[in-house]
Amino acid sequence: MYPSSLQKLIEELRKLPGVGNKTAERFALDILDRRDQDIEPLVNSLIGVHQSIKRCQQCAHYAEDDLCDICKDSHRTQSIICVVSSPKDVIALERSGQYKGLYHVLHGAISTMKGILPSDINLESLIQRCNETVKEVIVATNTNVEGETTAMYIAKRLENHPCDVTRLASGLPMGGLLDYTDDLTLIKAIEGRKKI
Amino acid sequence: MYPSSLQKLIEELRKLPGVGNKTAERFALDILDRRDQDIEPLVNSLIGVHQSIKRCQQCAHYAEDDLCDICKDSHRTQSIICVVSSPKDVIALERSGQYKGLYHVLHGAISTMKGILPSDINLESLIQRCNETVKEVIVATNTNVEGETTAMYIAKRLENHPCDVTRLASGLPMGGLLDYTDDLTLIKAIEGRKKI
Repeated sequence: MYPSSLQKLIEELRKLPGVGNKTAERFALDILDRRDQDIEPLVNSLIGVHQSIKRCQQCAHYAEDDLCDICKDSHRTQSIICVVSSPKDVIALERSGQYKGLYHVLHGAISTMKGILPSDINLESLIQRCNETVKEVIVATNTNVEGETTAMYIAKRLENHPCDVTRLASGLPMGGLLDYTDDLTLIKAIEGRKKI
Repeated sequence: MYPSSLQKLIEELRKLPGVGNKTAERFALDILDRRDQDIEPLVNSLIGVHQSIKRCQQCAHYAEDDLCDICKDSHRTQSIICVVSSPKDVIALERSGQYKGLYHVLHGAISTMKGILPSDINLESLIQRCNETVKEVIVATNTNVEGETTAMYIAKRLENHPCDVTRLASGLPMGGLLDYTDDLTLIKAIEGRKKI
């Protein structure tokens, strides 16, 4: 019953992840209530993001130039590469402020279920990056089946390479409650126990 | 740490109602992952909605022409006007399929708290619409303080007019549980009890 152009906007907004009918309607009415000059930045940034964002030629993280800001930064340790599945993971790790090396974004993970092969993700360029200056490859893929498979595959591919291949520690999340923790995490936490 | 154009899009998306940092990030990355031709409809509908949607000259519901689809429809009962606070309420009532009369959208409600006066909302045009052909004005404003105040004000303004001014029934929502119902709703439900 909305006029067609409004209905069209609602349908477009519904394509966003996790947005249903009600939320799309709320977004559309909010946008409609703004003044013309207020939607301009939104429209411009939508167009802009597609024009200016590409993949870093070295690590495949999002970049506006040939290299991303991290690869450009000569202060970062060039001998450590942290391998992640998606650019979101780079942001999460950067937020923690702990890691000072470089990254490599796979843009996916190997999945036998979904038929995603090693050649379907950005993996070959990682092997090529691992020259003699690289001392450590930290595999920080997710801890689900796909992430673990990918980690195993990377370790296998680099086994004849002098660099260390490491995996992020698994265990109890900080602030977590023991009796709410799933069995697999508990097993990993017991296996990885340390002297205090 | 995202490139600036992506960060800008995230900030713009965060202005949508109920959208926080995480959700805006998820939206932005989803939009970035689409191909160019897939974001075109979104961009076009954003621009389109501002260019083509205006208020119906009779009822102030959203319209693409001078009159909205409901006011244009000669099959609808012209002698009943249902007064609502927002265009969303028109959609909700239309969805129920029960009502076949016309509407009047106030685009707000009188609020002493927020300092919204009768002159700040689309109320004067309702009084002018109530000529001798109008037999009933159904006030379907919300059942909160602002909605009730607005309903009282409309009843007062139309008291010398021959038309009936009615209010939607208050009571238990269908499918609702009695012990989860708030006191005020229970009081209204008891007051409005009917013979079965």
